[in-house]
Amino acid sequence: MGSLSLITYRIKKNPILTLLLPLIALCSIYFVVFRTDDSIIGIGSLPISGHKWAHEVENTWYFPYTSRFKMPRYSYKTQHNWLFNDRVEDIIPEGHIAHYDLNKLRSTSDAAVDKERVLILTPLQSFDQRYWNNILQLSYPRELIELGFIIPRTKTGEEALKQLEIAIKNVQSDKKNQRFAKVTILKQDSQSFDKLQEKERHALNVQKDRRAAMALARNELLFSTIGPHTSWVLWLDADIIETPITLIQDMTAHDKPVLAANVYQRYYDEDNKENAIRPYDFNNWQESDTGREIAAGMQPDEIIVEGYAEIATYRPLMAHYYNKNNPIGEEMMLDGVGGGCTLVKAEVHRDGAMFPSFPFYHLIETEGFAKMAKRLNYEVYGLPNYLVYHKEEFN
Amino acid sequence: MGSLSLITYRIKKNPILTLLLPLIALCSIYFVVFRTDDSIIGIGSLPISGHKWAHEVENTWYFPYTSRFKMPRYSYKTQHNWLFNDRVEDIIPEGHIAHYDLNKLRSTSDAAVDKERVLILTPLQSFDQRYWNNILQLSYPRELIELGFIIPRTKTGEEALKQLEIAIKNVQSDKKNQRFAKVTILKQDSQSFDKLQEKERHALNVQKDRRAAMALARNELLFSTIGPHTSWVLWLDADIIETPITLIQDMTAHDKPVLAANVYQRYYDEDNKENAIRPYDFNNWQESDTGREIAAGMQPDEIIVEGYAEIATYRPLMAHYYNKNNPIGEEMMLDGVGGGCTLVKAEVHRDGAMFPSFPFYHLIETEGFAKMAKRLNYEVYGLPNYLVYHKEEFN
Repeated sequence: MGSLSLITYRIKKNPILTLLLPLIALCSIYFVVFRTDDSIIGIGSLPISGHKWAHEVENTWYFPYTSRFKMPRYSYKTQHNWLFNDRVEDIIPEGHIAHYDLNKLRSTSDAAVDKERVLILTPLQSFDQRYWNNILQLSYPRELIELGFIIPRTKTGEEALKQLEIAIKNVQSDKKNQRFAKVTILKQDSQSFDKLQEKERHALNVQKDRRAAMALARNELLFSTIGPHTSWVLWLDADIIETPITLIQDMTAHDKPVLAANVYQRYYDEDNKENAIRPYDFNNWQESDTGREIAAGMQPDEIIVEGYAEIATYRPLMAHYYNKNNPIGEEMMLDGVGGGCTLVKAEVHRDGAMFPSFPFYHLIETEGFAKMAKRLNYEVYGLPNYLVYHKEEFN
Repeated sequence: MGSLSLITYRIKKNPILTLLLPLIALCSIYFVVFRTDDSIIGIGSLPISGHKWAHEVENTWYFPYTSRFKMPRYSYKTQHNWLFNDRVEDIIPEGHIAHYDLNKLRSTSDAAVDKERVLILTPLQSFDQRYWNNILQLSYPRELIELGFIIPRTKTGEEALKQLEIAIKNVQSDKKNQRFAKVTILKQDSQSFDKLQEKERHALNVQKDRRAAMALARNELLFSTIGPHTSWVLWLDADIIETPITLIQDMTAHDKPVLAANVYQRYYDEDNKENAIRPYDFNNWQESDTGREIAAGMQPDEIIVEGYAEIATYRPLMAHYYNKNNPIGEEMMLDGVGGGCTLVKAEVHRDGAMFPSFPFYHLIETEGFAKMAKRLNYEVYGLPNYLVYHKEEFN
């Protein structure tokens, strides 16, 4: 009598086994499949409200997003290889070998169709709900957007972090297809970049220290978040509270290595008693002969910071070139950029363009970055008629 | 009659169901659990020899390494927080929120005990089995080592890639605790860095182009592989075929931001009829007054490349300071480094130190990197008596 017959025999003798066997098998399924996943919202049996977040247990966060069940993929679309499936695993468990073909990674004018990944990077000194709402209204597919923040380890930084965490939780525990591909938050305090209040922040004599610290924060954020799959990096200031919803599509469509939007500010014009706009960011500029002469006469470690009467460079500033009657897509060559809303092809960073915290051709931070991009043979452009808005300043 | 009784009734009528039900349940287990994992060696039912590698199917590689079953963890050890479990998820599925506290990430003199992650980066122009064997004999825990390669898209590059793939397969499909934490391979062709043969490679007049291309390759590799968990980056030339097995422990023990080993070469001394060693890498040097004077008199875009009689800088070269009678751990301050075997704290890169492909203080590539690290207020050292060996050159 074989073991099969034995089982049949035992089942006949004891019919309760006929129910127990499938039940045991089903329980096995449950434990094997769901046991390791019980922190995943919506998969385990707990309601979200009763869920204990992973970071509450172990000081980290873990919000899976998947439109498919397990390991999502993304594709490097190629023009040539229409015959073969060129999909590449994106997230691969530790200890993998990942092959990335940087020549297949593209940053094109048709980014969304091409499924190009955009990394939005923001050094966050304070959290403004309007900044977040503006991010949420962007129409570029969120599954292609990664967010990265660096937050100073200060009291205001901690406050901003709390608000940011709440905002992110709301989105990343919402419908799966509404979640961002990835969110990375870095904390760093070595050189706090927010120690200065809004008013002092713009005094020329503190600009060098402040912007050097800001440059370090940008580099730490950039080096920690850019991946081999990143196609574009959008530097977006935490104070930018209003952009067109097609911001990413509009800017990638220009297909430029570095492209800055024009940062303006809404205010109430007391004289004319009406709402009005005024230029805000003066770091987007073209070099001038005067600027070159000033630089030539400087000591090696002196820097020029644009936008101050003390150093009159007579540089053409993009902020002043806005003309609502001209096409919104008009381009302007630039030599310096700000960090308000600037889109960079990932290859520019990958080739080495970073934010110098030391004087680089008498420039630092984002202005030094533009110079470095130029040294790497990339062109730098701005969109004088494409406006994004910085929040008001309280005096 | 309830549905439970109905099942019991049917089972009694048709005893074949008593076997089918458990079988169906077991098949479900199989499909749910193993279906997505069938490329994982050792988990599916296929023997390794019959396994079809993922990259053969879809142009990518996927070799999971896990000492635990699913998601391995690593810890940021802290000095302060002995009370709480500070473990952080390392690999997190797409769409996560990752919190990284850069201030808890450390690069210390006790790296292995502290479980600090080391990223070994190698621009690979040709594959030498002795390079790979030397990597394999390193005694630093492999679960803390990540490897990164960038390979030019040329004929010799393709050849090197094939050999590297075979070598990696052997290790990453071997015992789980013998695997490297992660291996990343990048292919890039934009500016091939291997177009020059060994002999021409050292001619002064082609150094600038060659080293500029090499700098771009290094930056692409660095930006694509450095993560928020990386503590150290070891730049190791593909031609380094012999180092002490405690290389990483020895070098991290010095706890320096940038630290270069002394690159020598074994050869057969025809005169004395014996095996001997000679200095090889002259890019590790201290600045000299003559060097400064030469730089001061140069046009902005001229560069000094060390090790050529045409430009006699009289810089003290670390290669000449080897003395076998002095302590092996002796340190020497440097102003320029080579890429032969140079250990860098990840924070130096994260603060922005990269490999300039353009003249930076009349220096490029690794020498320019050292200058940039100094501009970021990091110190640069070398170990004149700590030798590693470059392979022989065939003439």
